[in-house]
Amino acid sequence: MALVAAVAAAPPHTCTAADGTAAPSQRGAWQGEFFAGIPRIQFEGPDSTNPLAFRYYNASEEILGKPMREWLRFSLAFWHTMRADGSDMFGSPTQRRPWEADAAEVGELEVAFRRMRAFFELLDKLGVDYWCFHDRDIAPEGASLAETNARLEQVVALAQELQAASGKRVLWGTAQLFKHPRYLHGAATSPNATVFAYAAAQVKKAMEVTKKLNGQGYVFWGGREGYSTLLNTDLALEQANLARFLRMAAAYKRRLKFRGQLLLEPKPQEPTKHQYDFDAATAIAFLLKNGLDKDFKLNIECNHATLAGHSCQHELETAAAYGALGSLDANTGDPQTGWDTDQFMTDERETTLLWWTLLHHGGIAPGGLNFDAKLRRESTDLKDIFYAHISGMDAMARGLRNAARLVQDGVLDGMRRQRYSSWSNSQLGRAITAGKLGFEELEKLALAEPDPWDTGLPSGSAELSEIVLSRYVR
Amino acid sequence: MALVAAVAAAPPHTCTAADGTAAPSQRGAWQGEFFAGIPRIQFEGPDSTNPLAFRYYNASEEILGKPMREWLRFSLAFWHTMRADGSDMFGSPTQRRPWEADAAEVGELEVAFRRMRAFFELLDKLGVDYWCFHDRDIAPEGASLAETNARLEQVVALAQELQAASGKRVLWGTAQLFKHPRYLHGAATSPNATVFAYAAAQVKKAMEVTKKLNGQGYVFWGGREGYSTLLNTDLALEQANLARFLRMAAAYKRRLKFRGQLLLEPKPQEPTKHQYDFDAATAIAFLLKNGLDKDFKLNIECNHATLAGHSCQHELETAAAYGALGSLDANTGDPQTGWDTDQFMTDERETTLLWWTLLHHGGIAPGGLNFDAKLRRESTDLKDIFYAHISGMDAMARGLRNAARLVQDGVLDGMRRQRYSSWSNSQLGRAITAGKLGFEELEKLALAEPDPWDTGLPSGSAELSEIVLSRYVR
Amino acid sequence: MALVAAVAAAPPHTCTAADGTAAPSQRGAWQGEFFAGIPRIQFEGPDSTNPLAFRYYNASEEILGKPMREWLRFSLAFWHTMRADGSDMFGSPTQRRPWEADAAEVGELEVAFRRMRAFFELLDKLGVDYWCFHDRDIAPEGASLAETNARLEQVVALAQELQAASGKRVLWGTAQLFKHPRYLHGAATSPNATVFAYAAAQVKKAMEVTKKLNGQGYVFWGGREGYSTLLNTDLALEQANLARFLRMAAAYKRRLKFRGQLLLEPKPQEPTKHQYDFDAATAIAFLLKNGLDKDFKLNIECNHATLAGHSCQHELETAAAYGALGSLDANTGDPQTGWDTDQFMTDERETTLLWWTLLHHGGIAPGGLNFDAKLRRESTDLKDIFYAHISGMDAMARGLRNAARLVQDGVLDGMRRQRYSSWSNSQLGRAITAGKLGFEELEKLALAEPDPWDTGLPSGSAELSEIVLSRYVR
Amino acid sequence: MALVAAVAAAPPHTCTAADGTAAPSQRGAWQGEFFAGIPRIQFEGPDSTNPLAFRYYNASEEILGKPMREWLRFSLAFWHTMRADGSDMFGSPTQRRPWEADAAEVGELEVAFRRMRAFFELLDKLGVDYWCFHDRDIAPEGASLAETNARLEQVVALAQELQAASGKRVLWGTAQLFKHPRYLHGAATSPNATVFAYAAAQVKKAMEVTKKLNGQGYVFWGGREGYSTLLNTDLALEQANLARFLRMAAAYKRRLKFRGQLLLEPKPQEPTKHQYDFDAATAIAFLLKNGLDKDFKLNIECNHATLAGHSCQHELETAAAYGALGSLDANTGDPQTGWDTDQFMTDERETTLLWWTLLHHGGIAPGGLNFDAKLRRESTDLKDIFYAHISGMDAMARGLRNAARLVQDGVLDGMRRQRYSSWSNSQLGRAITAGKLGFEELEKLALAEPDPWDTGLPSGSAELSEIVLSRYVR
Repeated sequence: MALVAAVAAAPPHTCTAADGTAAPSQRGAWQGEFFAGIPRIQFEGPDSTNPLAFRYYNASEEILGKPMREWLRFSLAFWHTMRADGSDMFGSPTQRRPWEADAAEVGELEVAFRRMRAFFELLDKLGVDYWCFHDRDIAPEGASLAETNARLEQVVALAQELQAASGKRVLWGTAQLFKHPRYLHGAATSPNATVFAYAAAQVKKAMEVTKKLNGQGYVFWGGREGYSTLLNTDLALEQANLARFLRMAAAYKRRLKFRGQLLLEPKPQEPTKHQYDFDAATAIAFLLKNGLDKDFKLNIECNHATLAGHSCQHELETAAAYGALGSLDANTGDPQTGWDTDQFMTDERETTLLWWTLLHHGGIAPGGLNFDAKLRRESTDLKDIFYAHISGMDAMARGLRNAARLVQDGVLDGMRRQRYSSWSNSQLGRAITAGKLGFEELEKLALAEPDPWDTGLPSGSAELSEIVLSRYVR
Repeated sequence: MALVAAVAAAPPHTCTAADGTAAPSQRGAWQGEFFAGIPRIQFEGPDSTNPLAFRYYNASEEILGKPMREWLRFSLAFWHTMRADGSDMFGSPTQRRPWEADAAEVGELEVAFRRMRAFFELLDKLGVDYWCFHDRDIAPEGASLAETNARLEQVVALAQELQAASGKRVLWGTAQLFKHPRYLHGAATSPNATVFAYAAAQVKKAMEVTKKLNGQGYVFWGGREGYSTLLNTDLALEQANLARFLRMAAAYKRRLKFRGQLLLEPKPQEPTKHQYDFDAATAIAFLLKNGLDKDFKLNIECNHATLAGHSCQHELETAAAYGALGSLDANTGDPQTGWDTDQFMTDERETTLLWWTLLHHGGIAPGGLNFDAKLRRESTDLKDIFYAHISGMDAMARGLRNAARLVQDGVLDGMRRQRYSSWSNSQLGRAITAGKLGFEELEKLALAEPDPWDTGLPSGSAELSEIVLSRYVR
Repeated sequence: MALVAAVAAAPPHTCTAADGTAAPSQRGAWQGEFFAGIPRIQFEGPDSTNPLAFRYYNASEEILGKPMREWLRFSLAFWHTMRADGSDMFGSPTQRRPWEADAAEVGELEVAFRRMRAFFELLDKLGVDYWCFHDRDIAPEGASLAETNARLEQVVALAQELQAASGKRVLWGTAQLFKHPRYLHGAATSPNATVFAYAAAQVKKAMEVTKKLNGQGYVFWGGREGYSTLLNTDLALEQANLARFLRMAAAYKRRLKFRGQLLLEPKPQEPTKHQYDFDAATAIAFLLKNGLDKDFKLNIECNHATLAGHSCQHELETAAAYGALGSLDANTGDPQTGWDTDQFMTDERETTLLWWTLLHHGGIAPGGLNFDAKLRRESTDLKDIFYAHISGMDAMARGLRNAARLVQDGVLDGMRRQRYSSWSNSQLGRAITAGKLGFEELEKLALAEPDPWDTGLPSGSAELSEIVLSRYVR
Repeated sequence: MALVAAVAAAPPHTCTAADGTAAPSQRGAWQGEFFAGIPRIQFEGPDSTNPLAFRYYNASEEILGKPMREWLRFSLAFWHTMRADGSDMFGSPTQRRPWEADAAEVGELEVAFRRMRAFFELLDKLGVDYWCFHDRDIAPEGASLAETNARLEQVVALAQELQAASGKRVLWGTAQLFKHPRYLHGAATSPNATVFAYAAAQVKKAMEVTKKLNGQGYVFWGGREGYSTLLNTDLALEQANLARFLRMAAAYKRRLKFRGQLLLEPKPQEPTKHQYDFDAATAIAFLLKNGLDKDFKLNIECNHATLAGHSCQHELETAAAYGALGSLDANTGDPQTGWDTDQFMTDERETTLLWWTLLHHGGIAPGGLNFDAKLRRESTDLKDIFYAHISGMDAMARGLRNAARLVQDGVLDGMRRQRYSSWSNSQLGRAITAGKLGFEELEKLALAEPDPWDTGLPSGSAELSEIVLSRYVR
């Protein structure tokens, strides 16, 4: 906040050096605060009716022996928060950000600097420690890849300054390999080898700047790595190329000595008709097949989970069962729409379930909860950015609180453990688990024993479990 | 047919031996033909208006150097063909099969024998070479597992006789591990170890009888291997148990010297909310993770593909890309319903696409095309069984013919090959494929070369591809 | 409860009269309580951890000036509660009800009596005032329609007794026109006129017994009134026949002097591929077109709403906007399954939204909240029936409490009212609403005024609304 | 064609008058043909392998007594054909149209003129007689509504010229009430009365220019007439306002003496979460309720049908059953995607079914088949526009040919008629149809007659119907 306050006091016009570039600390300076009049958001407790306060998120409060901020590891997504303009497939932009109004005059690079400053003001005011970005969202493309890289470096330099002053860090970075038309047929899966090379260059640079920004991870989301129709697609070749690309990425990561986690982000479709990382299990099959499972984990997104026909909790459980749980894009979709609405998750029941699962797996670190979520097109106030994130943070904090009580009391876990007790307690269960029995021994046993249906199988108690859960959703 | 004709001439009452069992060759004998008045179905060519004739399927006609019967390897599914009774979740049975009318009098085992005879009459009249079965559909359960096994052996003995006389073979067998209430919580994934043992005993026997019947494969469809709610489910434990079960199956297969292919059949859900073998990729992840990929391939079902959000062709391509293409359940669903309708696939465009893919992978053998399809509840004539299968066989034969022309002419394949030509023809493509380049080399190249978007990327030509395809859908 | 207690003291064997029928008050008597050991469920408050207690439902507590029981008007569905046996499309029954164990011995009519007694014990122990039924679920069919009617009368006579003793009432009755194979092609929409007549006779009788049981309504759910394929369907003729049938029903209702509300229950599909009463709007189109809108309202079911691609709240709002809001089947589906799972609704957020809507329309009376919900197949304890209903009742009570606070505080309603204020407050809005303006006047105005986008349109504030809502979901 | 040829010979630079406007006949003139090298598309018959020829569409060939062009009434959609730029929610434009390259230099109005000329060249070369447009797609907005209207008039003047020279006509026009941010909360359903007025002015003008262009109809598609969340929505008020708006439109149509048909176009969702004209039945309910059913019919779109959970044929049948079948947007979606992909319909089976239905209702006139379909993002050749439309036109022509044979032979119709024969042939059926019977008479009959299930109900013969259909899909 200190930095932002200092900036706010700076003169509203930027100081331009002789070479046409602003001195770093002046770049993107703006007329006072970007979100003037909005204070740093404070915890006021569940009964607060102040929409600009947290009711559940109390960063320093300990839950199960750790401060909430360390469990929750919130992250803002630069692309949605700063770049979503309210447009959709049928509509023009609706968001009018004051710091973009004179873009034609000050230039798009200066606007990029302003956005970065505004973003850090947001991080500060919301008390969020991490952020995520696409290379092309933070800095505009230039006339050549070299110029584009140079621009990216400039914006990253500012971000480094702002990070140094604020202690914020990057949760993960990524390269935007889907928006530019050169990637229309795919990036790593393009039928054109030069496009593959171009994508490699872009990812290389994005990994480098992610490292510079102390990124905890680096994500691959293959928005164009899929197909529009199988009629013109060599699926096996495309997947082999994708594997080649990721192997190069893993190799370069080692060479770069970048210690962040590499992550794949599954999504079933959209923009393409089918994306190769359809869901967690599909991504895992790909990693296992190509010997990449040691190098990559998964970044699960809740809205992608439901588009793939799964609950988000299912995707987390699946990733965890394969040792591939990496990070979480904390958003949600509309249950009746067939595309990615990237809404903020506000449902306390769902966040309770997610955290029940996460707590069983030790939390999400070194990943985090990234708000890959955007305002609705109709939400056109600057304040809406705050409402949305407060709502999302509080819902997650509420879920964490609920889940912690659920785990501490142990009722639901106890019921579940009891349900499987024959595997740990019975001689038969232990012998099977130990690998001592085969079909022949088991057949003998089955022929000798009464039918388990006749001796009684306990109820699954799903409805009782729901009652227990409902006690904890508060 | 010889056998059936002989049987038809036999007296309508069965000959019961002193021990209450009929002499094998009399078991299930019936009053003449089961499908009286329906002749053996003949090929009459595309212009035939006889609904009891084939218009496209001409068993011995050569397509791409092989008789159609060897490409198509049709199989009837005993369960749907003989046991589907027209009931649904909201309705009682509608099918009245004459040979079941006096079941109370003659006993359910005798009815089971009749069904097997009727089934072989069908195989003969339809000219289908293979069949598939669940253990419990061909023979009724007894009071104990031992008695159930004995009954199964009796029915299998009759089937062996009928096979010997007709040359028919089993495409694959399987165990019904979903209908009996003992499996309500799962079979291999039951929370109860005794149920696991019981399931093992059942699969062991089913594998044995499949071997006896010269089965080309053995299928695992995990209708109850999934969950109804995650609240009471230990997903990781259940999946570990499923892996244990399948490892035992693979070990027993070797011990039994059964040479058929083991297969997993993916389905996303139904009856459970989530099934562990959700789709091809999910099943492959599971096999790879558990070291089972050498022992198992996949039995893809088209209706399951669409329920999982994929086209059937996609599932075939995916299985093939992982070397796991095993067999195909040739059916389809209604595009607007969210459950398995198991209809006969009648769409010539879709069968053309499926065969286009299959021909690229050398066909489906040693698997086959199993009609896992049922009459609609309202189709209550015996003749409907014929119409349905003729329709399904003809649609597949039509697809094979179309796809063969498509492959022979090579237009679509040529367009596709051309699209990826930079990977085989350009120096860059070959160097990447050969693993000679990394991110650093590619970055240098990208910085030096013009943006591929500026130099022009060819159209994906999806619409032109559709025109080409349409020429072959006839 | 008095009656049930008396019955409990009666001898366990029934007293059979000379004519083979038991004296009414003995019919269905059982060995003490059906649900022995389960007490009448009491309200214990939110902190109770007793799963056999209510935490939110306190029948006599006043909410917005009315006791909770009068708002909620809970009803048990006889079919699910007493007849759901745990079977599904892939599995045999799993429910073993002790009072059905000796059915072969005592006869199915006696079992029907027992079920009715058990059901009233449930109504009593759960403190539920209403119930719903299909004719064929409460009484078994006989060899002829006349005999079937006679059996129905006998069971209804017992129900009348039990109602008289307990004060319980029927919320609505209905005829089961989907299970028997005679209805395989439809009932009112059957291609066969005799089936239409048969259905008419069945509905006539069902309306009569509903009247006898003081039914508040009578429901038509057209499970077979739809099609499996358009290839064999005359959609216009079928819909015309459905209209004829419903006109006859309305006429007979008047003649019978039955004062209950006639209701259509929309469902998009299942068992058929398409059902004519797809959703609320479709049913309304049909009623309006056929002049039936004065005679019929809608019974909205939440699981049917989501299958049709709507939220349940949407269907309630739609019905209300057309003046057709009749009653509610309080259940839910699994968000990832494409068929009717008929689960108990346990989500406090959703029940809050439903009650927010219902309170705006004055509640649901004379309809009610019918638990058209069933235990999961794996829930095989008798106690599960209680857990499930307690869970469902408490979730609805919790929603009512939340919604009442929401309405009383008025924050969300105030925001919404403010959003539309130009329609009530501005001269232009009032003139349009009053019908004083046409396109020509409006064009003049639009040409004269600045573009409303330039003068500022307020945010839709969806995220702020979600924050407000979240304060009330407790 | 004459005009376009003349234009082609004109100098490549436009002739600008002193007032800055070009003389009409020079506006948009271009350097020769827009689609140089592509000839007028000719019919070459089914065996042609020329992708720039028709294989099924032979405009003047008589089918069932009418030339194909009169049945098919093809229309090009200006928006997709000329304005779709290949962008999607995740990607920038991919289409580079040469006539737009110097837009910055020549001005957007001149580009609009060029587009109109290019479009008429397309109409000519494809042999399409009709076109459809949104106001804002043919002419760019100006600084004020007045200026926008003036620009629109200029473009319309050119279109009138081009129409006069070519004989082409508008199938329907419409106003774009969804793209501009002023409509972010709705147009006719905006919470803001001034926006309503603005929309009214826009529609008034769009109706006027549609009349000028001899439009056969005028369409209302309510892309923003719906909601994003019910939390901030007054559904009843919004629907009442929509009705007011449409009543004004109908009144102005009469005043304008515009003889075209007014049409609503249903779509379930996208861009909004829910659109009020969800599907055909929903739109009809709305029209009936508000007394608008005499003034409006429906424009059914196939991709919208499937998004709403229906087959396109179902929507046509539904519209027809209500006397509301107006026109058809001939496109299709991907069966596995949950958004509007607006692909060209290429499936000969589906077009056969659509035309089977349309022929039963006398065809689609005065509506037509509008290609509301776009190239895939990856289809970046100018030729792709031709391939796509040829593919779509041929698929429809093929369907018409197939359906005509289906109707002429009468087999399928005969089967269907026979299925319902008891309604026309039996005394009972006729008496019911004549309204002579009520529940009491029908009960007597049902009690006297045997159960229709016992006397036999014929099979629905769905599979046989599918065989018959397959004979005609060629």
